[in-house]
Amino acid sequence: MSILFTNVTAVTMDPADPVLKDAFVAVEGRKIASVGAERPQGTFDRTIDCTGKVLMPGLVNAHTHVPMALLRGYGGGHDLQHWLNDWIFPAEAKLDDRCVAAGAALGLAEMIASGTTCIADMYMRTGVIAKTVLEAGISANLSCGGLYFGDPADFSPEKCSDCQNQTVLTEEWHGAGDGQIMVDASIHAEYTSSAPLWRWMADYAQKHGLGMHVHVSETKKEHEECRGRNSGLTPIQTLDRYGVWENGGHAAHCVWVSDQDMELMRKKNITAVHNPVSNLKLASGVARVPQLLKAGVNVALGTDGVASNNSHDLFEEVKLAAILHKGTTGDPTAISAFDALSMATVNGARTLGRDAGVIAPGKIADLILVDFTHPNLFPCHDILENLVYSAAPSNVVMNMARGKIIYENGEFLTLDLEKIRAEVKDYALPHIFG
Amino acid sequence: MSILFTNVTAVTMDPADPVLKDAFVAVEGRKIASVGAERPQGTFDRTIDCTGKVLMPGLVNAHTHVPMALLRGYGGGHDLQHWLNDWIFPAEAKLDDRCVAAGAALGLAEMIASGTTCIADMYMRTGVIAKTVLEAGISANLSCGGLYFGDPADFSPEKCSDCQNQTVLTEEWHGAGDGQIMVDASIHAEYTSSAPLWRWMADYAQKHGLGMHVHVSETKKEHEECRGRNSGLTPIQTLDRYGVWENGGHAAHCVWVSDQDMELMRKKNITAVHNPVSNLKLASGVARVPQLLKAGVNVALGTDGVASNNSHDLFEEVKLAAILHKGTTGDPTAISAFDALSMATVNGARTLGRDAGVIAPGKIADLILVDFTHPNLFPCHDILENLVYSAAPSNVVMNMARGKIIYENGEFLTLDLEKIRAEVKDYALPHIFG
Repeated sequence: MSILFTNVTAVTMDPADPVLKDAFVAVEGRKIASVGAERPQGTFDRTIDCTGKVLMPGLVNAHTHVPMALLRGYGGGHDLQHWLNDWIFPAEAKLDDRCVAAGAALGLAEMIASGTTCIADMYMRTGVIAKTVLEAGISANLSCGGLYFGDPADFSPEKCSDCQNQTVLTEEWHGAGDGQIMVDASIHAEYTSSAPLWRWMADYAQKHGLGMHVHVSETKKEHEECRGRNSGLTPIQTLDRYGVWENGGHAAHCVWVSDQDMELMRKKNITAVHNPVSNLKLASGVARVPQLLKAGVNVALGTDGVASNNSHDLFEEVKLAAILHKGTTGDPTAISAFDALSMATVNGARTLGRDAGVIAPGKIADLILVDFTHPNLFPCHDILENLVYSAAPSNVVMNMARGKIIYENGEFLTLDLEKIRAEVKDYALPHIFG
Repeated sequence: MSILFTNVTAVTMDPADPVLKDAFVAVEGRKIASVGAERPQGTFDRTIDCTGKVLMPGLVNAHTHVPMALLRGYGGGHDLQHWLNDWIFPAEAKLDDRCVAAGAALGLAEMIASGTTCIADMYMRTGVIAKTVLEAGISANLSCGGLYFGDPADFSPEKCSDCQNQTVLTEEWHGAGDGQIMVDASIHAEYTSSAPLWRWMADYAQKHGLGMHVHVSETKKEHEECRGRNSGLTPIQTLDRYGVWENGGHAAHCVWVSDQDMELMRKKNITAVHNPVSNLKLASGVARVPQLLKAGVNVALGTDGVASNNSHDLFEEVKLAAILHKGTTGDPTAISAFDALSMATVNGARTLGRDAGVIAPGKIADLILVDFTHPNLFPCHDILENLVYSAAPSNVVMNMARGKIIYENGEFLTLDLEKIRAEVKDYALPHIFG
């Protein structure tokens, strides 16, 4: 399939040339074939006139738990421990494959309609999620969030269920869909596992060339208790001692990381995945994003799971990332519009090993069209400002993932929303909540 | 016109009975005629089946500058003083009546489509705004934000243009449209005027029974400089010495108000209008909303002008009000979903002297329908949680203001969006920006 976008205003996310006007963007198969002022030669299966719209890279959700869409708003209004122990964990214990598939499809529908083309997910029953993602059409780095609560002395990979899950996931799904699915190695967090798992996972990632997805320093309690257990070493530093970051990684949250952690993150190519909505909602705090950027750390964005957000709207995360740090530091220039948009596109793509997030020849054709004729995006004095501070999911009128249009003018082209709704309503919710 | 809503799930905002199911809500003329489990007798001009939707009070934007929709994203990325002096003020100096009418209509369109039914606006050329509001159909408390930079010794109401503007606005518009338009007395801020204007405006409000709309303690600089000029008295306290709050009032921002200010606010019935997006974006800080609520102060919500937001999305303000104070205080129960929604409905209506913001017989029929079948609102474990943490403007499928449907299924019934766009594009923008 070849598609030519004409009359294009594009936000390329290339700092040297961030905004193009009156351009042509051609897509051939999975990739962007050309970008330029001249109409490319040849014929195309379809031509899309972009007048009044803005073409930009699809959004990258670098930390989420997509099947938790089933638990949207469940147990809200309680403190964190009560919420987890009395609401979320008991509900999750009842999930089966069919529930996870339904929740994943529902979450993906919301993501696709709001402009997301690539995610990094961490959840259980990951093979089921992989199958759903493959059908939906976006790219995903999947991981199962390794846990190990046993006695470290008793650890053996054969008996550790999450080592087995990791192995099966990698063997069955890494590279599936011509690279659409990638598998990350994953440790849920320092406080939910111990040294033997870290060592095994580090070796496994090295051996298979996988990325690494970990929850890091989300709460002060987690950060400080880790230091207490590990001679003052923080979660990032503790895991580093076991070689966990040798391939870099995506460290979700990083609310409480220290200046020394930031230096280590830069050196080891560890991306801080900022989840501003979830961090505020769960009262975890405000990550020091301006300092992370100054320290040269790659910062991406995530929504976290819907149960602690309660949406998959990355435009909301972009805007909150752009304004929150201005308000809490007192510096109205703390995060630029370009920085905030980079977090949700090119920076996310970079940590997930995706040659995307930028509109340039040869890049994966993960592209969205945003309708700037909608009243909330009009007038437009500055395209980046409007995208960061004014855009909403409903402005997304096309989502192209890997060269294929999967959502257009409110219609899902790979998912059957009515079927998903029926499956959630008639199967998943009764199964979980009785 | 009489309308019967059937199969209603309603968020009433009545704390005693916040959520009704399988109810009937009848509207006769401007008011809610009945709410209950039984179908009311009589015939209706129209029946609206609310299956799959939630009926709630329309949202109240208690602090905005609606014509600034023209300046959306203009001059972004600069620090506050540079932004105001080099970008906003020069642009505003070029506004004429026709520009203000176009900007007001554009801003109102965005507000109406996102569920707003009542606003408190402060801007220049206020009569033009009044005319536009009257056509659009929502309720508005209008004010002109009195300034006085002259020598206090030279003050005379006849020579003070904003005293004249206030007088003309009140005489021409207070009570217009059978109460649709109300006029507030208004002082732009303590730092942009002086004692003779405060005294005159206080007397004027008393004499005409008007509310009072003032910017208060938005920045630390403003707050501290006021204390320096006024023997340690804060802006709220300074104005109180001149009788400004005798009718209560809406104090916009209140980021830096003191504990003593809060006590005064409670006693004098001064509402704190929280503008969380604008306060973060302009790096003003985080208002101490949990303390305001604890002190018994009425807290409402506003978007501020679009140039410092850059949207009129009150659902965003509700969510940010609900999560921001959790994140910055470390208390996940700091603001409940009901508290956040109250700020955007009943609390706003209260300060604006509107018998609205609650679904109950006899109240003004300011009502919106939110479609809970959209993927971002499904499933629904708790209606309040979904409204506060998941709802978006695009979920609003009907806006009824004062008993009249003014927006339905994406169509504006009082405004001509194409005409507004053309007027902004062909007249206002060339006029301002050359």
